[in-house]
Amino acid sequence: MPVRALWYRNGTLSLLDQRKLPGRTVVRRLTRLDQVAEAIRTLAVRGAPSIGVAAAYGMVLGQREGRYTPDRAARLLRATRPTAYDLFVGIETVRAAWAAGLDVVSAADDYRAKIVDACHRIGTAGAPLLAKASRVLTHCNAGALATVEWGTALAPIRVARERGAHLFVWVDETRPLLQGSRLTAWELGRERIPHAVIVDNAAGHYLSTGQVDAVMVGADRIARNGDVANKIGTYEKAVVAHENGVPFYVAAPWSTFDSARTNGRSIPVEQRGEAEVLEFTGRRVAPRASHARNPAFDVTPARYVTAFVTPLGVIRPREVARTLARVERDAR
Amino acid sequence: MPVRALWYRNGTLSLLDQRKLPGRTVVRRLTRLDQVAEAIRTLAVRGAPSIGVAAAYGMVLGQREGRYTPDRAARLLRATRPTAYDLFVGIETVRAAWAAGLDVVSAADDYRAKIVDACHRIGTAGAPLLAKASRVLTHCNAGALATVEWGTALAPIRVARERGAHLFVWVDETRPLLQGSRLTAWELGRERIPHAVIVDNAAGHYLSTGQVDAVMVGADRIARNGDVANKIGTYEKAVVAHENGVPFYVAAPWSTFDSARTNGRSIPVEQRGEAEVLEFTGRRVAPRASHARNPAFDVTPARYVTAFVTPLGVIRPREVARTLARVERDAR
Repeated sequence: MPVRALWYRNGTLSLLDQRKLPGRTVVRRLTRLDQVAEAIRTLAVRGAPSIGVAAAYGMVLGQREGRYTPDRAARLLRATRPTAYDLFVGIETVRAAWAAGLDVVSAADDYRAKIVDACHRIGTAGAPLLAKASRVLTHCNAGALATVEWGTALAPIRVARERGAHLFVWVDETRPLLQGSRLTAWELGRERIPHAVIVDNAAGHYLSTGQVDAVMVGADRIARNGDVANKIGTYEKAVVAHENGVPFYVAAPWSTFDSARTNGRSIPVEQRGEAEVLEFTGRRVAPRASHARNPAFDVTPARYVTAFVTPLGVIRPREVARTLARVERDAR
Repeated sequence: MPVRALWYRNGTLSLLDQRKLPGRTVVRRLTRLDQVAEAIRTLAVRGAPSIGVAAAYGMVLGQREGRYTPDRAARLLRATRPTAYDLFVGIETVRAAWAAGLDVVSAADDYRAKIVDACHRIGTAGAPLLAKASRVLTHCNAGALATVEWGTALAPIRVARERGAHLFVWVDETRPLLQGSRLTAWELGRERIPHAVIVDNAAGHYLSTGQVDAVMVGADRIARNGDVANKIGTYEKAVVAHENGVPFYVAAPWSTFDSARTNGRSIPVEQRGEAEVLEFTGRRVAPRASHARNPAFDVTPARYVTAFVTPLGVIRPREVARTLARVERDAR
């Protein structure tokens, strides 16, 4: 059964609590906007496309509650996390419908359907890249959990696999929150896709010894010049892949592209609490007196990106601005 | 009080159990060779220079037990871990004394003193490098715990600090066994040296945003051409430092240099058990069905090393072979 990260019905947004996986499958049922904001802030739901869809339904719940204006509802949800661009797109889509007196459930459902369709198209577009690249490294979780269904980085792997490819996935564990060893490994395991978990430190070893044919990651925000904000550690993998001549692909729907952002330097990077670093599964590992820094994302300059896998096909970083302009023209 | 990783007296080798730090300070008292072998294998004692000294005293205990030949004792200790070159140097030093009928305690004591002296010289040689590089990134633990006293990578930091430098240390946590967040942070905290722990994934972010002036690491084995085997993840930091024009220094005593090894490609890399990756403090984090790969070291090609900090001063990778030949000539 395919994974679904979240679903909406009759005033209730249900979502898999991603903090509990893979140990326990807990479904949280949310009926209020503030619960959705809390779920996004605490990473019960995570992954740029998924939080965009969750926030879209958070707007729906806010409208039902009858105590928010569209602008106030949007403001509360926008304040949850700063980096993923999808969050703002999902919120704005429903805010505009609400403010115009249109049906907000339809607006959120359409947004959700568009994201799922985009991810499936990403899978179809990206699968041929893996025809001769059977050993794929991925970082964080850019699977169905991060995108409602299919995934971004995992979509080409799923489609290639359906077409009979024999793939092996190197799964970076992705400290501090282990989205790789907890979530990506869980998704791959359910579909019996061969994989091995490695500590993030080991990716360079496998890249430099000829054991990785391609790197495939998702994104939280992509600037017009092709600079990519994604989970902390993505930049290191990109540099080391580049140094070893291994292609580095970034898979994302259009809701992740921030066409107003000239380059990645000004993308806001979320700083999270130090406990995520100093503790491990709730137990203190560092000395009591030590402190930590915990940036949740980093920015990978476009020159390290071999290509973007988009719903409109595989494009080079220099083609991003032009393609985005076309997508926005077609949407009007 | 300065940290001492281990000490020998009257037939007993005492060592700080590094698996328990920083939570508990447990001293293990060993009286048999097989206990020393077990302590090395299980990482109760770790760090190339420290395991070399521990193994030297393991030979002493073996001789006292009266049930080993020098060769058999050496064989048992050599089989504990494959990568650190110091292990073999420490063992051979005492084996030769034992086989020649000389005092093995003196041989081990001299070896220990030479390592401690070498580390202090490394500190003196390396401190000037930090005069204008006040923000230093280090990986794993190359402090007193790893080298009996002083440290290799941490020795220049300690000496610079004694001379009044204001330093700040970025501490990579160093998955899977967290020698950075557990041990390096503990050593720095005891001496009130300002530091922040980061996940290994975040090093690239700080290197690329101009917040690191130098990288300083230790080594487990260095080939004649300057290729360096060190804790997994070192290679990634070296590549990313190089890409950002940040100097990358490797500090090591001569016992870490394997002059018979032409380059790093043939250095044996220890593969450790997958539980270190899939579990933490006995708690499973990855799905039950998932597997892991766990190389404990990687090899950094000499071209990424700015300089080596040695007991004879700071040398370039291309000077390693010539300097080693001189050291070996002087030792004869």
